[in-house]
Amino acid sequence: MRSPSKRSLLLAVSVVAGLLLLAAATRPGVASRPVKTFHLYVNDGEWEFADGEKSYIVGYVAYNSKFEEAPPGAKLPAPTIPSPEIRVKVGDEVHVFLHHNGHSHAAKDSAFANVTHTIHFHGMDLVQAYDGVPGVPAEGLPAKLLGGVPVGSVYEYKFVPEYEGTYLYHCHIDSSTHILLGMYGAFVVEGKKPNTIYGHHYDREYTLFFSEMDSAHNEAIRTRGDYEMLKWKTDYFLLNGRIFTDDLTNPLSTIADPRSVIRAKEGETVLLRLVDASFSHVTAFHPHAYHMKVIGIDGRKLESPYWKDTIPIASGERYDVLVPIIQKRKSIAHDHNLGGMVSTGKYPRGPLTIFAVE
Amino acid sequence: MRSPSKRSLLLAVSVVAGLLLLAAATRPGVASRPVKTFHLYVNDGEWEFADGEKSYIVGYVAYNSKFEEAPPGAKLPAPTIPSPEIRVKVGDEVHVFLHHNGHSHAAKDSAFANVTHTIHFHGMDLVQAYDGVPGVPAEGLPAKLLGGVPVGSVYEYKFVPEYEGTYLYHCHIDSSTHILLGMYGAFVVEGKKPNTIYGHHYDREYTLFFSEMDSAHNEAIRTRGDYEMLKWKTDYFLLNGRIFTDDLTNPLSTIADPRSVIRAKEGETVLLRLVDASFSHVTAFHPHAYHMKVIGIDGRKLESPYWKDTIPIASGERYDVLVPIIQKRKSIAHDHNLGGMVSTGKYPRGPLTIFAVE
Amino acid sequence: MRSPSKRSLLLAVSVVAGLLLLAAATRPGVASRPVKTFHLYVNDGEWEFADGEKSYIVGYVAYNSKFEEAPPGAKLPAPTIPSPEIRVKVGDEVHVFLHHNGHSHAAKDSAFANVTHTIHFHGMDLVQAYDGVPGVPAEGLPAKLLGGVPVGSVYEYKFVPEYEGTYLYHCHIDSSTHILLGMYGAFVVEGKKPNTIYGHHYDREYTLFFSEMDSAHNEAIRTRGDYEMLKWKTDYFLLNGRIFTDDLTNPLSTIADPRSVIRAKEGETVLLRLVDASFSHVTAFHPHAYHMKVIGIDGRKLESPYWKDTIPIASGERYDVLVPIIQKRKSIAHDHNLGGMVSTGKYPRGPLTIFAVE
Repeated sequence: MRSPSKRSLLLAVSVVAGLLLLAAATRPGVASRPVKTFHLYVNDGEWEFADGEKSYIVGYVAYNSKFEEAPPGAKLPAPTIPSPEIRVKVGDEVHVFLHHNGHSHAAKDSAFANVTHTIHFHGMDLVQAYDGVPGVPAEGLPAKLLGGVPVGSVYEYKFVPEYEGTYLYHCHIDSSTHILLGMYGAFVVEGKKPNTIYGHHYDREYTLFFSEMDSAHNEAIRTRGDYEMLKWKTDYFLLNGRIFTDDLTNPLSTIADPRSVIRAKEGETVLLRLVDASFSHVTAFHPHAYHMKVIGIDGRKLESPYWKDTIPIASGERYDVLVPIIQKRKSIAHDHNLGGMVSTGKYPRGPLTIFAVE
Repeated sequence: MRSPSKRSLLLAVSVVAGLLLLAAATRPGVASRPVKTFHLYVNDGEWEFADGEKSYIVGYVAYNSKFEEAPPGAKLPAPTIPSPEIRVKVGDEVHVFLHHNGHSHAAKDSAFANVTHTIHFHGMDLVQAYDGVPGVPAEGLPAKLLGGVPVGSVYEYKFVPEYEGTYLYHCHIDSSTHILLGMYGAFVVEGKKPNTIYGHHYDREYTLFFSEMDSAHNEAIRTRGDYEMLKWKTDYFLLNGRIFTDDLTNPLSTIADPRSVIRAKEGETVLLRLVDASFSHVTAFHPHAYHMKVIGIDGRKLESPYWKDTIPIASGERYDVLVPIIQKRKSIAHDHNLGGMVSTGKYPRGPLTIFAVE
Repeated sequence: MRSPSKRSLLLAVSVVAGLLLLAAATRPGVASRPVKTFHLYVNDGEWEFADGEKSYIVGYVAYNSKFEEAPPGAKLPAPTIPSPEIRVKVGDEVHVFLHHNGHSHAAKDSAFANVTHTIHFHGMDLVQAYDGVPGVPAEGLPAKLLGGVPVGSVYEYKFVPEYEGTYLYHCHIDSSTHILLGMYGAFVVEGKKPNTIYGHHYDREYTLFFSEMDSAHNEAIRTRGDYEMLKWKTDYFLLNGRIFTDDLTNPLSTIADPRSVIRAKEGETVLLRLVDASFSHVTAFHPHAYHMKVIGIDGRKLESPYWKDTIPIASGERYDVLVPIIQKRKSIAHDHNLGGMVSTGKYPRGPLTIFAVE
């Protein structure tokens, strides 16, 4: 899978440079910190929505649930929206390997076919070698680092998360296009104490990832690699990659997705991690039947929490909220910006899910 | 007005089921709580804007200012934008009857002609029987509850508000369309102490309700009952249902509406209840000449108030703000998202009103 | 430059009336407060973007860096986006003269050619005579005040800023159009103690002004003076008037602008003053590598600061944030609302700049 090309050798040099930076960043005497390793592979494919339509997408995939390195020649899973959630703990030494396996579903003559990729760990506040941003003049770093990870290469990102909370990771090459193709996922940093965040207890947790898609954009990228971005017109507003539909038995609906249906028991406290990677739509997340206590934003504890029943979330923001399950009831939770609830022009095809309390 | 049909009998069964839920929800020994009853009737009609154009709208109307039940055959008022504000007190036993009287102004062969309606009390955190949401599988509740209230029927919503603050109510059938047709109003829960909210004193109060309308959508719903929602293009950005115009004597302008012109005296404190039910426009409410102290959001007291002169409000949000009237002056207050100030393509046709301090 | 016409005589009367108001507003016994005088001149011209395209703009210009009055017949600088930043201190007696010098670059038969202008000091909370708003019925003030400052006239605004913080000034005649043409700038009120804001220390500061432009709008105003505002389509999303481009040596790019490239040294604390005057785009400002401590909003100290890495900003809002420079690194900072990063349809042409830490 790895092709030790000239390019990757150069990248290897940058990895060494990065290691030095990492060494400088870690404190002496903490050699025993846990190491967590994740292998992510770029993969493209088709994503089917609950209305039966399909769209070209690109994502990061994991070979297995442990994010282990894929054996040579192993078949990779198809991409999903969002990409798999990564979980680490405060103080872990995190190693993320990005393997660029190419875009087997893109047209061969598409300008997208051989583009590079990176990972930007949004909110992690990393040094340049691990920040995933191309094109920034890099003092002391190889010029090739600037171009992103080419097809057939691998790059290692390393860092030690200092703050518990909710983050996201996404590609930062041609970002609007690569993100909107599907190259994003949640990145969660847990605190040291189980079921505790920012000092607050919770019984269960769910990550709700909001995003947008313009399927015409994705198809244009697949076939030509180019799109007039001012023509962007979102046709899918997504919660964890799905839309709701009136058909409650639809296996592709949000409510057939265990990541999105919020199950809890009376008396419990549910942590919701709200994440957004939109084009420009501001999602107004509104659960019925419950108020939410906002306890942290963008990976930082809120000193003065406040209560909301409708939270506007812009692209790149994260809200950590606690929901006390005050009573057995079933309710819905959805985007209250009504324009977000009409994917493909039809209501209620949008980010809507169910709170199912036993 | 009520037609005791098979449908309403089934609905009556669900009301009984709901009553049991209510009984379970109320604490024993508080039989003496005040009962507040409101009768709301679905009605449709025409709404005229300050530019002389008219649009089909649908709303909830009250027979009289006490929200009493209309006598058989009584003529109902025409709908307004927004629907009448409902006011109760913390601890009241609130009963709201929704009477669906049909859509006499819709084309008979419009798919909209016989649709059902409900009331969702946004932010009240109710059990399913009173939450106004169709289509959610309802354990122990009659299936018919799921479809909404049909033409010719009545449904009773019951609850006891626990938190003072500002809320809204709106239809939750085919929500994007029904809300945007005009089916929304403010719902205010007063505290026990007069002129006091969240422990803060105020001398006067105004409710400013922001919303959007696409008159082409409304006309399509009236005639066909169908609209390609991705074509939505707001042509009216509204404050309490109206736009401002350059003609200060226009009787249809915001500033001819006593609900919207903020009159106060020097030294007073004015409470503004900001409510929003937009399509996707984020209103940036900006009063000139005054800063606002944000004391509560979404029906909950803010422990750490803050000051703003421009408040972004997304659909479904409410802000309770205090304005100390520091000096005799006249000023304007408007949406600072400039795109909201150009209804019908012309400035200053948008949510703009006047602070008139004596 | 000043033409003592009938109009300006009438305006002079209003200035007298305004002076009386100012006298009433200032406290007795503080005659020794510093007087700060600024002369701003309306000027129009062409603005070139980093993609080589040019657009008609209108702005306020200063004759020199001291904002002194221009000698008769002096050539004025071309307008810039944004207009020059004005700086005063809490307690200063501020005098701002608006000279309307006409629109020499507009077509003579454009309806825009002879429009009036004003200055609204957004967030300053001024009495009507100095608030820059036309058309509001003015008790005790000459009717002519209502029309704005005509070509060839001058008007004096006077006030004493009470609160340190970040504000903006802009025209309030036909506001959506005049603002979007470029008539806006930052207005900063410093506290009495150097390098201190709201009691917090900072080492350096930058003002980042976000705005939008639709070059078709600007051209229509220049040639005809009229634009169907519902057709508004932003093609330039700007940071201090510029877009970023892939060409790092482009002299017109954001990163060739010393106002926008954030230079700092390890261990310092940087104050960023975020200001927004958008059409309706919500900018989601996201610096890589750093979290921001939000210490003040809309010109008021925040009692309970909080941390963010992505701040949504709507038109008219200001955020004062502190960035502790924790480590030597170079990173980018940009709008994370991806739609804002595709000016002219191409990524990364948007509000993107660089944090360059030595």
